Amino acid sequence: MEVEISLRVRYGETDKMGIVYYGRYLDWFEVGRTEFCRALGFPYSELEKRGIFMPAVESWCRYKSPAFYDDLITIKVKVEEVKDYSVSFFYRVERDGKLIALGRTKHCFVNKDGKMVKVPEEFLSVLRREGSI
Amino acid sequence: MEVEISLRVRYGETDKMGIVYYGRYLDWFEVGRTEFCRALGFPYSELEKRGIFMPAVESWCRYKSPAFYDDLITIKVKVEEVKDYSVSFFYRVERDGKLIALGRTKHCFVNKDGKMVKVPEEFLSVLRREGSI
Amino acid sequence: MEVEISLRVRYGETDKMGIVYYGRYLDWFEVGRTEFCRALGFPYSELEKRGIFMPAVESWCRYKSPAFYDDLITIKVKVEEVKDYSVSFFYRVERDGKLIALGRTKHCFVNKDGKMVKVPEEFLSVLRREGSI
Amino acid sequence: MEVEISLRVRYGETDKMGIVYYGRYLDWFEVGRTEFCRALGFPYSELEKRGIFMPAVESWCRYKSPAFYDDLITIKVKVEEVKDYSVSFFYRVERDGKLIALGRTKHCFVNKDGKMVKVPEEFLSVLRREGSI
Repeated sequence: MEVEISLRVRYGETDKMGIVYYGRYLDWFEVGRTEFCRALGFPYSELEKRGIFMPAVESWCRYKSPAFYDDLITIKVKVEEVKDYSVSFFYRVERDGKLIALGRTKHCFVNKDGKMVKVPEEFLSVLRREGSI
Repeated sequence: MEVEISLRVRYGETDKMGIVYYGRYLDWFEVGRTEFCRALGFPYSELEKRGIFMPAVESWCRYKSPAFYDDLITIKVKVEEVKDYSVSFFYRVERDGKLIALGRTKHCFVNKDGKMVKVPEEFLSVLRREGSI
Repeated sequence: MEVEISLRVRYGETDKMGIVYYGRYLDWFEVGRTEFCRALGFPYSELEKRGIFMPAVESWCRYKSPAFYDDLITIKVKVEEVKDYSVSFFYRVERDGKLIALGRTKHCFVNKDGKMVKVPEEFLSVLRREGSI
Repeated sequence: MEVEISLRVRYGETDKMGIVYYGRYLDWFEVGRTEFCRALGFPYSELEKRGIFMPAVESWCRYKSPAFYDDLITIKVKVEEVKDYSVSFFYRVERDGKLIALGRTKHCFVNKDGKMVKVPEEFLSVLRREGSI
């Protein structure tokens, strides 16, 4: 399963170079993850209500072409890898069908006490059902 | 009591106009409040550990002159008004001794359940001791 | 004319209090202004291409009720006042039809050299045509 | 040459998980780069005044342990690699001497027209002089 979202570049996301600040792509990836989980039928907000959190343990982004204010950006999100204790997402950032950035984030699962837990079985089963893994 | 802090404008705080984005001043005010509370001997992090939070109920900023990347900015913070359930801070933002912005934020006090509570007596007493009220 | 936009609260817009950080509302107001100008038939990006910029000279926000991660937020934007050298916008932030914040921003118009200029006649005429002033 | 900077975690840098939002580390890396360049005697703001910009082409961060509001954070920055058209920085993020994150960013050099240019000879010579390469 691949989920596609669109967003408009905000003025506050640009910097004095006139392009989107490099750190803001990670905010966009998170918007993508949120919609990916919603599309799975497993909203991330629900996961947190059950006391499970998904902090990032790694992030990576390759910036191929700048994004500008008011650009209409598409982000394509998919699950790249699932391990016992982590899940990795992969992102393609496009404008007008042209690739402008690639990204990857890896997340673990922790409970309210910050203790690492296995990827919830329920999360795995929806990923399997949707063909993501 | 007036507390003075300094900070360097970060690249990511600027926007495509080449100046600091107007919303970032509120982040700076918060840095100012944090240091004000520490200078009072009442770190805000301690307040939260006791289950008291200070959400903003109002913010105001007048932008007189732009701030630029790498500028060394001074923020002067003081308590402007204390009521039974709120406290207001006032901010002067300066560069090289020249005023570039003014701000004011008003905060209430809430407990862990989000219920509004009176300004903690301990907070009032340090403000009185320091001559802030 | 009043323009209404919707947005999802991003995870990165929240703070450790579990609610949207107070400074992020100003980012939302800007998203509202962008869409207001587009609805006017006068995209702000076009204005900048002509060498006219609209820096904020004042901002104000009253926070009535917190916003949370993944909330679907509505922002209603209108022009409140137009003077020779400035324009003020007014914002209502709502969730499920309930008002959660109010805001106002005032902007001047400057050219590429940062020199203040009168509100462009073209901008005034679309505001008049749309009944905003 | 390794440059070390300190910063306090800002409230607005945290998210509802109660820890620093993963994207904010890239803002910190940039603060580190700014001070690295200043320590080199080659302030980045000067480079931009000469019409040379250093957009990021890649970023990577490994989050080992969370950072919290008001933590005093140390960032150690050094140049990791210099190629004809790019320079890579490496970052160690520490708290109380304990490593909490690692990062790497790669930057190219572009002129005002966004055209890629070679690493400026002047930049190379200060890196050589300081033993960074």
